[in-house]
Amino acid sequence: MKNKYQTLVNQTIPISKAIGWHLQSLDATNIISRTELKPNINIHGTGFAGSLFAAAMATGWTLLKCWSDHQHYSNELVAAEASIKYVAPVTEDFICEAFIDINNELYTQLLERLKIGKGASYLQRVDIKCGSTCCAILEIRFVFKSIKRIED
Amino acid sequence: MKNKYQTLVNQTIPISKAIGWHLQSLDATNIISRTELKPNINIHGTGFAGSLFAAAMATGWTLLKCWSDHQHYSNELVAAEASIKYVAPVTEDFICEAFIDINNELYTQLLERLKIGKGASYLQRVDIKCGSTCCAILEIRFVFKSIKRIED
Repeated sequence: MKNKYQTLVNQTIPISKAIGWHLQSLDATNIISRTELKPNINIHGTGFAGSLFAAAMATGWTLLKCWSDHQHYSNELVAAEASIKYVAPVTEDFICEAFIDINNELYTQLLERLKIGKGASYLQRVDIKCGSTCCAILEIRFVFKSIKRIED
Repeated sequence: MKNKYQTLVNQTIPISKAIGWHLQSLDATNIISRTELKPNINIHGTGFAGSLFAAAMATGWTLLKCWSDHQHYSNELVAAEASIKYVAPVTEDFICEAFIDINNELYTQLLERLKIGKGASYLQRVDIKCGSTCCAILEIRFVFKSIKRIED
């Protein structure tokens, strides 16, 4: 599972290689990635805000893509909007962690819409950490686009 | 001016080279950059959400760094939070455009605080465009940190 999605991301989102983004663990509802600091520094020698966002976005997208594949949905998955708070500087290789809370009402709504072939949106949180320190929090509103059929 | 800041960004934010970020024009209150699509594609062959954010963040940071240098302030400049809306897919090399509105009250407040050696925050908008189409809008809250002096 991990190797399949590492390859998928590296092949389809090539900047994931340049930022040194590596999957550490992945299942249908949990993901952890590790990203190298060195290619992602800023003028202060800490993590560049843009790189932290890109690594966390790749992490959130991979989790929802894996979940969606697992559920056998073929909707196109895109980010509609996102917001990030930078809490502490990133001073070493960093972790991006996310999970899908299947007990949440938003998850139930997502499932219900996808089951009847509708598009749906879902808010996914990704935490960016150095060791036990939370350095940034990203929230992404993803959209699962409904598959348009050409009527005869 | 343009070459000086292109070199500064490439040397201090190395990922700017990997994403193909190029300054097109820069003065103390206006900036335009162009970023290559090819290294920044996603699974759909359009611009990866994380790369668009990174290119626009580099653009916003460069504008405020240039403005700050021009005003002879030496405060450390960092991003505190940011939000982005993705409006249309990026299908070609893309432009990031931003300007500082010197007639805005927020600008006046920023100047007043920096003049007396205080820290200050400033909200900077960056538009991401393909030709005349606005593809995404990023808003970044930057913080100019006050310079701490060690008292004798």
